[in-house]
Amino acid sequence: MIDRIHVIGSGRVGSAVAARLRERGIAVGADEPELVLLCVPDGAIADAARGLTPGPWLAHVSGATPLAALDPHERRFSVHPLQTFTRSRGPEQLDGAWAAVTSETDAAHAVGTWLAETLGLRPFELADGARTLYHAGAVFASNYLVALHRAASLLVESAGAPAAALEPLMRRTIENGFELTGPISRGDWATVEAHRAAIHEVHPELDELYETLAGATLALAT
Amino acid sequence: MIDRIHVIGSGRVGSAVAARLRERGIAVGADEPELVLLCVPDGAIADAARGLTPGPWLAHVSGATPLAALDPHERRFSVHPLQTFTRSRGPEQLDGAWAAVTSETDAAHAVGTWLAETLGLRPFELADGARTLYHAGAVFASNYLVALHRAASLLVESAGAPAAALEPLMRRTIENGFELTGPISRGDWATVEAHRAAIHEVHPELDELYETLAGATLALAT
Repeated sequence: MIDRIHVIGSGRVGSAVAARLRERGIAVGADEPELVLLCVPDGAIADAARGLTPGPWLAHVSGATPLAALDPHERRFSVHPLQTFTRSRGPEQLDGAWAAVTSETDAAHAVGTWLAETLGLRPFELADGARTLYHAGAVFASNYLVALHRAASLLVESAGAPAAALEPLMRRTIENGFELTGPISRGDWATVEAHRAAIHEVHPELDELYETLAGATLALAT
Repeated sequence: MIDRIHVIGSGRVGSAVAARLRERGIAVGADEPELVLLCVPDGAIADAARGLTPGPWLAHVSGATPLAALDPHERRFSVHPLQTFTRSRGPEQLDGAWAAVTSETDAAHAVGTWLAETLGLRPFELADGARTLYHAGAVFASNYLVALHRAASLLVESAGAPAAALEPLMRRTIENGFELTGPISRGDWATVEAHRAAIHEVHPELDELYETLAGATLALAT
């Protein structure tokens, strides 16, 4: 569908995306690109877009940024890989991840879907007005998972146990389809109360986090 | 070290443990057991222990319960597999998981470590007085991970996107060593503010959870 793509930005996402496009035989960085792909920080998208002469397709890979940030370009769309990227890995990071494709025309949808699939992503449609809500969900799933792990590690290490022991537990919780086990699932409030007291004694900074998550677990998962 | 074990309780953990012991050639449920293993709910441990004639080793597999629950038995210890179990899987659920071994004597430590290793677990020592703190950490890592996933799924589905798309993101967050990415890691408070507004409009019941976790991410993970 497209042979020449210009990728702007060589951060975590831009590097993986450019490498994958090259693997797929796309001329990356060639003259007269048919598509310009902005892999720049969210706050830099609008400036970058305004600095480009309209003509080729223009897309960004941001999760929360609306398409209006690509003004004044009209041949535009967004493909957001729903994944967390690290600099120490390559384009294989894209494999198996899903991608939100946001577009305003059938033609833009076709190009966006083609790009997602060419990158090795599983595309789904996302309405422009729903991007922020969607991105907040992604933050819960990834960034807040990091916070959970840090809190769990603090407690386990303060008990003299190895934090590494948490990882098989977290992986299996996902593999088991997020089936709830443990004291809240059993209505074992004596244990919950004992947790509260133990946390308050050693890590009072985690009191509110434990309490809020206990409430959320009861409300959402039982 | 031990040839005959009596496993009391056939719930999620008891079933997997008994099956694994049989796989290892242990006589499970035989007469005159050398070890009785209580795989019963936390609240039933003390009663079960009091009902048994002292003599053989006695152990429980609870995370938060102190060894005193095994009174009046003195040849006692605990092995807690740090894992979440489901009825739809078998003893292979034990593979790769760690186990907290709590004991009061060298002999009890030796039997507890042997039991953990025989079950396919990686043992570590845990002081009796630290069990509640340790178990609270496990609750963060597993039960609260379930709550996070439910919240993330609610938001993503309300945005019209498939919740299944979250799973590769969550797995990779773990595989990447819980490296923080996303708006909080970038100090992108405009996006955080946009999340707050979008969540409040559609799922105000998640306002406090988002806020508390944003604060914890900033405090613990940046």
